[in-house]
Amino acid sequence: MQFSTLLTHLSGGENQPLFLGDDPELKAAAALDQASQGDLSFLEPGNALLAALAETSASALLLPPDPELHAKATERGIAWISLKNPRLGFAEALEQLYPKSPLPCGIHPTAVVDATAVLAEGVHVGALVVIGANSRIGAGCILHPAVVIYPDVEIGPGCELHSHAVLHPGSRLAEACVVHSHAVIGSEGFGFVPTASGWRKMPQTGLVVLEEGVEVGCGSTIDRPAVGETRIGAGSKIDNLVQVGHGVVIGKNCAIAAQVGIAGGAKLGNGVILAGQVGVANRAVIGDGAIASSKSGIHGEVAAGEVVSGYPAIPNRLWLRCSAVFSKLPDMARNLRQLNQSN
Amino acid sequence: MQFSTLLTHLSGGENQPLFLGDDPELKAAAALDQASQGDLSFLEPGNALLAALAETSASALLLPPDPELHAKATERGIAWISLKNPRLGFAEALEQLYPKSPLPCGIHPTAVVDATAVLAEGVHVGALVVIGANSRIGAGCILHPAVVIYPDVEIGPGCELHSHAVLHPGSRLAEACVVHSHAVIGSEGFGFVPTASGWRKMPQTGLVVLEEGVEVGCGSTIDRPAVGETRIGAGSKIDNLVQVGHGVVIGKNCAIAAQVGIAGGAKLGNGVILAGQVGVANRAVIGDGAIASSKSGIHGEVAAGEVVSGYPAIPNRLWLRCSAVFSKLPDMARNLRQLNQSN
Amino acid sequence: MQFSTLLTHLSGGENQPLFLGDDPELKAAAALDQASQGDLSFLEPGNALLAALAETSASALLLPPDPELHAKATERGIAWISLKNPRLGFAEALEQLYPKSPLPCGIHPTAVVDATAVLAEGVHVGALVVIGANSRIGAGCILHPAVVIYPDVEIGPGCELHSHAVLHPGSRLAEACVVHSHAVIGSEGFGFVPTASGWRKMPQTGLVVLEEGVEVGCGSTIDRPAVGETRIGAGSKIDNLVQVGHGVVIGKNCAIAAQVGIAGGAKLGNGVILAGQVGVANRAVIGDGAIASSKSGIHGEVAAGEVVSGYPAIPNRLWLRCSAVFSKLPDMARNLRQLNQSN
Repeated sequence: MQFSTLLTHLSGGENQPLFLGDDPELKAAAALDQASQGDLSFLEPGNALLAALAETSASALLLPPDPELHAKATERGIAWISLKNPRLGFAEALEQLYPKSPLPCGIHPTAVVDATAVLAEGVHVGALVVIGANSRIGAGCILHPAVVIYPDVEIGPGCELHSHAVLHPGSRLAEACVVHSHAVIGSEGFGFVPTASGWRKMPQTGLVVLEEGVEVGCGSTIDRPAVGETRIGAGSKIDNLVQVGHGVVIGKNCAIAAQVGIAGGAKLGNGVILAGQVGVANRAVIGDGAIASSKSGIHGEVAAGEVVSGYPAIPNRLWLRCSAVFSKLPDMARNLRQLNQSN
Repeated sequence: MQFSTLLTHLSGGENQPLFLGDDPELKAAAALDQASQGDLSFLEPGNALLAALAETSASALLLPPDPELHAKATERGIAWISLKNPRLGFAEALEQLYPKSPLPCGIHPTAVVDATAVLAEGVHVGALVVIGANSRIGAGCILHPAVVIYPDVEIGPGCELHSHAVLHPGSRLAEACVVHSHAVIGSEGFGFVPTASGWRKMPQTGLVVLEEGVEVGCGSTIDRPAVGETRIGAGSKIDNLVQVGHGVVIGKNCAIAAQVGIAGGAKLGNGVILAGQVGVANRAVIGDGAIASSKSGIHGEVAAGEVVSGYPAIPNRLWLRCSAVFSKLPDMARNLRQLNQSN
Repeated sequence: MQFSTLLTHLSGGENQPLFLGDDPELKAAAALDQASQGDLSFLEPGNALLAALAETSASALLLPPDPELHAKATERGIAWISLKNPRLGFAEALEQLYPKSPLPCGIHPTAVVDATAVLAEGVHVGALVVIGANSRIGAGCILHPAVVIYPDVEIGPGCELHSHAVLHPGSRLAEACVVHSHAVIGSEGFGFVPTASGWRKMPQTGLVVLEEGVEVGCGSTIDRPAVGETRIGAGSKIDNLVQVGHGVVIGKNCAIAAQVGIAGGAKLGNGVILAGQVGVANRAVIGDGAIASSKSGIHGEVAAGEVVSGYPAIPNRLWLRCSAVFSKLPDMARNLRQLNQSN
């Protein structure tokens, strides 16, 4: 694809400064330090790869509005356009350069679809998929091989379920959700009543709701509760190997990184970001836009907009200072002993 | 179901104080603050939802032996019964209100069952299940679609294996075990011998034993050892995404929360509770009834009945005090500098 | 198998001191404290089971070069050989005592293999395996039941893929890799661009490369990047439930324990060892031979050969001392208050 053609697909690219050069033919995309001829690449302000601009073999670049970078690219004869959000442009460009081949509509002959299941138009059901009784699959859904849908599941239009995803009874997926390989939606919550003779199971009769545009990563598990629902808000993205306990409510547009665990009944507002391996305790409440850095452990409440770290989680800035002192504890202890002696 | 009929199914409900009201017809169950007409709900002493009693639309309640609560419910015209353990009653009630539809006995035509496998009576084998050579499936077992049983596996009566559970050779499940979706039982332990040319695999020839009533959550992995066995004691419950290393021995009636990791050769007594994301090091030993709070990291030994926290784990009460001081470390460091100057 | 026959299979066993005794017939292998007659066992220097030598019922032993142990075994009438690396010998012996039965070549009739896929000689394709378009499977590969290979995957000779492993488009496995049950190779990296209307997916068009002899544990996930590749170096071993983010580069012969999370773009050198539940932040760099103890959290850079612990990770020796002082923080705080008063 010519660079000039690609530009017509980039939002926010109209009337921006650009240098077409010889309007290179683009075949692929790459990071700036690994790009070769025919590659598109991009730069952001503060990007670790800024220095690579002097040596890159990329044929075209998406650059931030920085005249110095523009001049440097022009000087090197590399075609470029200036974008407010070059990373967004790169995402749009990748879709053009690596178009997905559409999967054919229809049901693979080895799929096992219950007679009472209802499939809308334009659905792709791959090999060895199982769809249980009374489940409903929305228009244009893609079910990759070996997906298992238990009975009584509802999937909205345009969802994509990757191989070995499992949806348990009562799962409700709105439009355009993506469930990655080995994710489990609607599994039984970990609810047991302690009795004299051991743990007695609390039946988990509730359901899991994924609102529009939710994405659930590989191997992540989202449990259904005893009663009521577990709910993931529209546009929220969940990475791999994340545990979401029964009755958890996650707001809209949250980002939950890999290996996070959210215990039963916790509530997250909108736009919450949890970094990798964070733990959230039972019934904790996290306000809109709060951020927890990796490995933090959250009990109780985190106010909207707060940034927390550590275990138990405290404000990030305080934690950074405390952690710095932590590594000086042996010195402090010795110092204290000296003071004791001299007193 | 009428409330009066439901009561006949609740253990410990005989001769308890109750208020039948108009003996409401119950259609469902819900948390107290989300219940509507026709719903059963329950309350426990200290429950966060106590205040919701004044406003709930629930039609019937399972209450603790608290005359004040009883009076309040009666006053609002809500039917109730007093139970020593309302949570247990709620579990029993959910089974009545949400009965599981029994799955038909038989082998789905798409299942692949080796000719040498032995299936007892009343087994349900779902679509696309694979059962390997010489495996034995006990009476009344339920194998949901796409379960894979390797050769030489023994499963006791009344077990339920959810979709995509995988049981590796040598796995032994006693009666009434539950294995949730994507759990892996009997996978190879992570055993390698360091050599000059790299890591050399130690064959893992041992097996995994789940005693009666063990439950293993979604995506959890229980490895078999080089020799001998990995054993999970009767009645122990394991949540999602838990790693149990080779040769681990877990006692009876333990509760292991999500994302816990237990390294090879560790030993847990009976009734041990590990909260979410706890780590247990190789060959650590944890006594009966010990509890580890979330994210703690256990090396060496934990005495029976002890409650530990932190990493490295220390007694919980001490840890709480240490953690409180941790957040004052910058102040302490400044204080110390001042004392040094004034000395 | 006679002990004398077994000895011919042990590397480094030539011309070593030994005691054949009555050349026992060996039927199995066991840990020293659990061995019964007919069992082989082994001991290492410093092994926790040394005391068990006085009571073991094992019939034969692999011992380290320690004359005292040799004498003791002879005295008890137990056959033995002295080996520099008894653990390596035990690995070799297990392969002899527990030979794997070879799986027949051929494609199970229920497998779904795309017409454009290319399978080399001697491949075993189990029941309900799916192989997508244009994928290539090397000679002698073993695909256990219900493995899913997406289109455009390349697998070298002699690989073993366990049940429910999933390989996404673009995955490249070199010779002799092992992928355990529910591992996911080549899934989409967690890449989203923040926009005013929410998270916008960055297409993940790159690929994942596993070099020769890599092993990936159950439920582990190795993501592909937006562009370029995620690469695991030859001989590296990854345990269960590990997350490897997009664009990560892991060197050769690394050992990554269970539940480790490695965020996008991190780089590990050769021979790196990460213990259980370690977290590695985006773009962190870890030098050759570095070791991180369990639960540590690594940002920035770790020098070659360094041993680190804690979060944020600091040198292990320092961390041990700091942790010891941590549990004395309440005392220190009180001490400080006293000093303040007396000043």
